Amino acid sequence: MPDPRLSALTTPCLLVDETRMVRNIDNLSQHAANLGVTLRPHLKTTKCVEAARYVLADGTGPATVSTLAEAEVFAQAGITDILYGVGISTPKLNRVIALHRAGCRVTVLLDNAVQAQAVADASRAAGIAIPALIEIDSDGHRSGLTSSDPALIEVGRILHEGGADLRGVLCHAGESYGAVGRAAHAKCAEQERLAVVDAATALRDAGLPCPIVSVGSTPTAHGAKDLSGVTELRAGVYVFFDLVMAGIEVCSVDDIALSVLTTVIGHQTTRGWTICDAGWMAMSRDRGTAAQRVDQGYGVVCDEAGTVIPGLIVLQANQEHGVIARHPDFEGDTPDFPVGTRLRILPNHACATAAQHQHYHVVPEQSGAPLMMWSRFGGW
Amino acid sequence: MPDPRLSALTTPCLLVDETRMVRNIDNLSQHAANLGVTLRPHLKTTKCVEAARYVLADGTGPATVSTLAEAEVFAQAGITDILYGVGISTPKLNRVIALHRAGCRVTVLLDNAVQAQAVADASRAAGIAIPALIEIDSDGHRSGLTSSDPALIEVGRILHEGGADLRGVLCHAGESYGAVGRAAHAKCAEQERLAVVDAATALRDAGLPCPIVSVGSTPTAHGAKDLSGVTELRAGVYVFFDLVMAGIEVCSVDDIALSVLTTVIGHQTTRGWTICDAGWMAMSRDRGTAAQRVDQGYGVVCDEAGTVIPGLIVLQANQEHGVIARHPDFEGDTPDFPVGTRLRILPNHACATAAQHQHYHVVPEQSGAPLMMWSRFGGW
Repeated sequence: MPDPRLSALTTPCLLVDETRMVRNIDNLSQHAANLGVTLRPHLKTTKCVEAARYVLADGTGPATVSTLAEAEVFAQAGITDILYGVGISTPKLNRVIALHRAGCRVTVLLDNAVQAQAVADASRAAGIAIPALIEIDSDGHRSGLTSSDPALIEVGRILHEGGADLRGVLCHAGESYGAVGRAAHAKCAEQERLAVVDAATALRDAGLPCPIVSVGSTPTAHGAKDLSGVTELRAGVYVFFDLVMAGIEVCSVDDIALSVLTTVIGHQTTRGWTICDAGWMAMSRDRGTAAQRVDQGYGVVCDEAGTVIPGLIVLQANQEHGVIARHPDFEGDTPDFPVGTRLRILPNHACATAAQHQHYHVVPEQSGAPLMMWSRFGGW
Repeated sequence: MPDPRLSALTTPCLLVDETRMVRNIDNLSQHAANLGVTLRPHLKTTKCVEAARYVLADGTGPATVSTLAEAEVFAQAGITDILYGVGISTPKLNRVIALHRAGCRVTVLLDNAVQAQAVADASRAAGIAIPALIEIDSDGHRSGLTSSDPALIEVGRILHEGGADLRGVLCHAGESYGAVGRAAHAKCAEQERLAVVDAATALRDAGLPCPIVSVGSTPTAHGAKDLSGVTELRAGVYVFFDLVMAGIEVCSVDDIALSVLTTVIGHQTTRGWTICDAGWMAMSRDRGTAAQRVDQGYGVVCDEAGTVIPGLIVLQANQEHGVIARHPDFEGDTPDFPVGTRLRILPNHACATAAQHQHYHVVPEQSGAPLMMWSRFGGW
């Protein structure tokens, strides 16, 4: 029977299953508590004040963000401890200073002497010791210094002696997204831990302060068994999870809390295709499962209530059209959907799919209660 | 020398080169005039009222849109003749009726009897004959009826006899995006023309009206040599162009009017990587050139002024990080960029990249004049 709460929505639109989201949040909070570290959730996935309230213990932090636009919105909403987790550039430091003056303690991230000097200079000029972490590389994924690089101490000294507030080190095991299974993620987590603990030791041995030792990615956060020497853990996409995380066994498909509601608008009968109104504008162009064992196209098809329909994916996507078809590897029968049928699509990558939308329609835990609508923001 | 107008912008952000945009618009307008057809530009690429004013002859239309949200914004801005070019679904018809009542003539698109009946019923109930086009398929790309399908006449009759306003037929040669070169696009255009002209003939032979015969895609619009029997031409991405269009030789790289301004934030020297702050959130996840002869990664790197730097692309992208590196096929030397350098990235797909942003920063034709900032909207 159609859900009248969903029938009232214009498609395509973004749905959140509150029950699953709360379960995902509780699971990682418990795991972080068991490991004895502070959880610093990454708010880049949801970019939503209401969703942030679910992940932040007392509503004020600690939090991680990926843009200064996020820092500014969340500071307005009362969050006072924010890590801006992308390498700082000089022109952005005036906005960091403005946030500090407004009462929000923003920590910046960097991995080179040019940035360190800019942060030190801005700290002196403003009379505010800007808190900074040095990024450490554990797997050659992207950014960061290795723990044995002499530049680590040089960067630390520029910050510490130059008037900034050297807070410590941070590592993100980006390669963990390519590893499959809990054991593999545990290994990535240990590599991430060792890199950052070694870097912390190097800084302290050089007489520099290092109170913060930060690690995290959703796979390593869930896989970590021991975080000795680490003070805080970061993760973001775990709030919603997605097909990429299910594909590497961080979660199951039934944990995915985010989906796109769509309507069937036609058929291409000669090809066995059902055409729906969720194209890439609604799903994003993210094809994160393409490199995984099971390529889920542009998403897994569920009925309107969110139950997976075996064997059906969004095989192709144009801007406002999705092509629903049988998965190439599936041999069973799949149902036909008349024009007007409503379906849900589970996304490859929650961060990317959510970014295509301005609102979340939240299906509440309490059965039959009205949907909640939460705003989402973007920009830099 | 750095351009102070660009230095004042926060990166990443979206730039438009007005000179190139105007040239692209003028070229296709002239071509449509030469072919003797009305140009009905697709506004889904820009989703911007200011940009729409450049492509619409007198500011009121005709225009094509891909969402009712676009129709509503453009109707508010005074556009009165809009084709909603995605198959209509029943719950959206109340918004179509509301637009008509507000003075905007919205034409809907459909390809099956269920939709036709819904449009006819809504027309009768509202006392407004909703204008409708029947979608024709010329290449098996996605939606539409073939011109010989008996359903064409059935759908036409449901509309015409049921109280809707049967306006004619429409075809979109979606397969033309996979064809390379003007001659190949001319062939796709002729196939598109024949399909829709045949369908128009079939409707007229059955005693049904067919005043509108509409074709278009950016490749076929530019490739078409003869549009006998066609009344209107649609195209969208030509306003900005992009690397996908350059890859199939509809334009050159120097015609691309859209780019993302970015700042260098670090290096991964062991890999020869430069890290910038334009990740997939700024570029989109679109990898449209991946299937082309030259895979341009997440985009082609230009200097701050927009001149292409030979051999450099955004090789990889994370959410807020772009990895700039030498193209795997390039053997020459490439320059190093210090932290803080500003660069521009040309996108794979202008529609997808623009959709990641809320504003355009327009570099005006007039040298030294201040930048213009135009708002962009999204949603459905």
